Amino acid sequence: MAEPIGFIGLGIMGMGMAKNLVTKGNSLIVWNRDISKSEAMATEFGCEIAQSAKEVIEKCIITFSMLSTIEASDAVFLGEEGALCGISPGKCLIDCATLTPEKMVQTEEIVLARGGLFLEAPVSGSKGPAEQGTLIFLCGGNEELFGRVKPQFEAMGKANFYLGPVGQGSRMKIVVNMIMGGMMTLLAEGLALGSASELPLADLIQILDLGAMSNPMFRLKGPKIINGDHTVNFPLKHQQKDMRFAVELGDQLGVSLPVSAAANESYKRARLEYGDQDFSAVFEIAKKQK
Amino acid sequence: MAEPIGFIGLGIMGMGMAKNLVTKGNSLIVWNRDISKSEAMATEFGCEIAQSAKEVIEKCIITFSMLSTIEASDAVFLGEEGALCGISPGKCLIDCATLTPEKMVQTEEIVLARGGLFLEAPVSGSKGPAEQGTLIFLCGGNEELFGRVKPQFEAMGKANFYLGPVGQGSRMKIVVNMIMGGMMTLLAEGLALGSASELPLADLIQILDLGAMSNPMFRLKGPKIINGDHTVNFPLKHQQKDMRFAVELGDQLGVSLPVSAAANESYKRARLEYGDQDFSAVFEIAKKQK
Amino acid sequence: MAEPIGFIGLGIMGMGMAKNLVTKGNSLIVWNRDISKSEAMATEFGCEIAQSAKEVIEKCIITFSMLSTIEASDAVFLGEEGALCGISPGKCLIDCATLTPEKMVQTEEIVLARGGLFLEAPVSGSKGPAEQGTLIFLCGGNEELFGRVKPQFEAMGKANFYLGPVGQGSRMKIVVNMIMGGMMTLLAEGLALGSASELPLADLIQILDLGAMSNPMFRLKGPKIINGDHTVNFPLKHQQKDMRFAVELGDQLGVSLPVSAAANESYKRARLEYGDQDFSAVFEIAKKQK
Amino acid sequence: MAEPIGFIGLGIMGMGMAKNLVTKGNSLIVWNRDISKSEAMATEFGCEIAQSAKEVIEKCIITFSMLSTIEASDAVFLGEEGALCGISPGKCLIDCATLTPEKMVQTEEIVLARGGLFLEAPVSGSKGPAEQGTLIFLCGGNEELFGRVKPQFEAMGKANFYLGPVGQGSRMKIVVNMIMGGMMTLLAEGLALGSASELPLADLIQILDLGAMSNPMFRLKGPKIINGDHTVNFPLKHQQKDMRFAVELGDQLGVSLPVSAAANESYKRARLEYGDQDFSAVFEIAKKQK
Repeated sequence: MAEPIGFIGLGIMGMGMAKNLVTKGNSLIVWNRDISKSEAMATEFGCEIAQSAKEVIEKCIITFSMLSTIEASDAVFLGEEGALCGISPGKCLIDCATLTPEKMVQTEEIVLARGGLFLEAPVSGSKGPAEQGTLIFLCGGNEELFGRVKPQFEAMGKANFYLGPVGQGSRMKIVVNMIMGGMMTLLAEGLALGSASELPLADLIQILDLGAMSNPMFRLKGPKIINGDHTVNFPLKHQQKDMRFAVELGDQLGVSLPVSAAANESYKRARLEYGDQDFSAVFEIAKKQK
Repeated sequence: MAEPIGFIGLGIMGMGMAKNLVTKGNSLIVWNRDISKSEAMATEFGCEIAQSAKEVIEKCIITFSMLSTIEASDAVFLGEEGALCGISPGKCLIDCATLTPEKMVQTEEIVLARGGLFLEAPVSGSKGPAEQGTLIFLCGGNEELFGRVKPQFEAMGKANFYLGPVGQGSRMKIVVNMIMGGMMTLLAEGLALGSASELPLADLIQILDLGAMSNPMFRLKGPKIINGDHTVNFPLKHQQKDMRFAVELGDQLGVSLPVSAAANESYKRARLEYGDQDFSAVFEIAKKQK
Repeated sequence: MAEPIGFIGLGIMGMGMAKNLVTKGNSLIVWNRDISKSEAMATEFGCEIAQSAKEVIEKCIITFSMLSTIEASDAVFLGEEGALCGISPGKCLIDCATLTPEKMVQTEEIVLARGGLFLEAPVSGSKGPAEQGTLIFLCGGNEELFGRVKPQFEAMGKANFYLGPVGQGSRMKIVVNMIMGGMMTLLAEGLALGSASELPLADLIQILDLGAMSNPMFRLKGPKIINGDHTVNFPLKHQQKDMRFAVELGDQLGVSLPVSAAANESYKRARLEYGDQDFSAVFEIAKKQK
Repeated sequence: MAEPIGFIGLGIMGMGMAKNLVTKGNSLIVWNRDISKSEAMATEFGCEIAQSAKEVIEKCIITFSMLSTIEASDAVFLGEEGALCGISPGKCLIDCATLTPEKMVQTEEIVLARGGLFLEAPVSGSKGPAEQGTLIFLCGGNEELFGRVKPQFEAMGKANFYLGPVGQGSRMKIVVNMIMGGMMTLLAEGLALGSASELPLADLIQILDLGAMSNPMFRLKGPKIINGDHTVNFPLKHQQKDMRFAVELGDQLGVSLPVSAAANESYKRARLEYGDQDFSAVFEIAKKQK
């Protein structure tokens, strides 16, 4: 029988990912801060529940983790009873969270010091793709480990990339989200200008979708923006944080990013009032003032 | 037998449009400054060649025009022997050029004063769509005329929109091109940041194409930019002009466009050196300096 | 006895300028749209009142004009009975308005065609300096005429510059006002950041005034901004117009102006609500949002 | 006889400050990493030389420090033999460096934990004001200590401000330098636009100096920029770092700073090539491209 796979973190993303792992032939040992999520996985799929994140790592050769913030990650990984204390020679950890390159390097150092293997694997894609198994994995770190867990990546996603040393996965995520955030500010400015011009905005969305800029995001968000619907898929405050990361990465490397920096300031302007709404709410400060 | 349709201006765009008109059942009377283009149409399709643009209008109820710049438009339309002098009650002119809203209104005034009907119909799409009959027509002006020439729009394009009074077609085009130009600056900044981060750029392009931002422009231009290929489809200086129009339209209407204005300044920075190359050459000033 | 000097336009600026001319030894022939201003000058200083602006030019070798907008200028200068029809060989016109370089060149062409001499002389300085005779004249055009009217410039101002052909005076004004407008947005952002940081803003103003950035504008406007006092000296909508002129001039010449363009967008954002208040009201949109 | 005053760090700034303290009646115990500076102070003024920074604090009730970077500060203050280990109940430390608010709070915490008193006192002003005793002290922390060392501040500077808890001095410095850096980019853009317009740049500088924007920085730097002289007073890379701090502070507090962010991107663009030159070198990337 196959080795069980560990899975730490059954939140919005992690739950979908774990389900795809198990339905595609893996047996899982799981842990989540809120035990009801683990129990659901046990009841439905017969997963084993560990007493702690550390125990997951101790019981499995290969463990995936999906913790949403630096704070959650630190709370679970670090400290005397932290999960990373479960690392011993040969243990493998694949961290799918989107943190900073610096944070990922720090985790790697601890894992390596204990004889383990580490791979960062932040994902592109949100709740829907997690459930449907169509995530994209942006990996950095141990390339041999990347090869070993390909079957698991394929169970959870539609694509996976090995991008170099730890940090490169997170940097790729930052670049991709910078472009995404910038595109949303352009859609917002375009709708604002179209609205002030008294153009039919539904037609504007349709025209964009017929041409070289046609993309799923405009197609999905455009009509919602027109209706003032900023139901959250990706919170504006998270988008702003990613724009800040991008501007800072450019600072470190000496790359001037005037358009993205302007977009960042628009998100900053919007954040206090609209931070918890969808990032499409940047439209609310783009539209004709007064 | 059906009324012949007039067509003025057989340039890169106009030639493809005229061919589609004729192959889909219209008989044409054509005029072009360079007569060799007209002769090609006569030889290949049996089109009648008029002695002047004015004569086209005099001989046809409905005339389409496709002149690429304000200067070309003025040279052909205005003056004592200008084409607009051929307008008499009931004559219809459909101007497919991308000029300014103000210029279109000015042409309309002359046409109306002579008893004619006018429609602006700037197109979204370049040489390829013109040849393939997949243009998008963005129309403003006489709505009844819009209805009458639907068959011709359908012969030349895959979509057509009636957007309101004259000026609204041009404004829609400005908004669409503002978003397009902004997206290209974001792609340029993303590639610059990725390059400075030593990320594999081909992977970046592929990752963008797998997600919510997937769009034909990134797919087409991304690999070319990586190869330093800025073979011109849409000249950078024209994109910069359209960004300027957008910023100015925002100024007229009181819409602040900080991201688009930053993009405009990037195109301005690139224009002197790269103005005649493709607008993707904005990457050359985005990439790591020094 | 000395030749009388013509003066057209006794508005906020013109009245102070005319008074300084007359109290420093010039005899004036004046005209103003609102005759009560002319009558005040006649009663107090014995100035002669002309029946029209054209008559001023006909009666004087040298005429100064100070009309505040392009619209006012066109209304007085152009047309069959316009003032410029009073120009005949040897007549000299010095236009002190702040219009565009293009407009000044157009006026010059008419004056030259009638055998006259022309000097543009836009001023730096507002109501106070006009009254106190401390304006700065930024001149372009006929250099010999510049030399002839030096005594009059000295009666009205503390400095005068000959800058080259017509247009260069207006361009200098645009550059100066671009810097001024940009500085005000920086003061606004600094006060906004200081306020959100809970710094004592009066101290911030004082610290700025003790260092290398110490300048009369910050000294004057800083305390007013803190008190929410945007009593108008220079309307925000006029500052925004000058920023737009600067950005457009950069566009013509291929100069990228990212900081000034961002400042322009801030003024655009403020204009609908605060356009008639002082340009310091740009602070209202800079301060912490929400 | 008066208590001796401790002084740690005799660099470009510290040397001038120490001299002013001693020539105005204080006796000093000094330490500097490079002992030759300490020996110069001993020879010329009879200052006592300590064996370590820690010894300075042990021997004095009140110690000033002036260490130029976070790295230098950490190297001297922290660690088992670090200067902060010399703090015991009642000892007073006044840190005149320009670091971050967070760094100052961290130092304060260590000092307080050992029973000491702490004041941050970053200065506005560079080498010249340090030598001439005309610095401006921007203080945060223990207000009673601020009162006690007023005589020393007055020996070294022309003004001193108490601004609140530790961090507020550093924040004031950030705001002031943000405005300074922004003003330099405006001067650069103005000179670039003036140059492209073929305006006489010396006149532009003079006109700015005659009006409401007249300030020592433009007066000093303007002529140097025209001559391509960027001899360093304040390195461009330090100005860029301060702009970044300002943008980040705005991010923390939810203040959108579009103009300052654009200025930051201009400094980023200039940094790789001109980072060690004066911050006026931002002009080199503002001037007409190509």
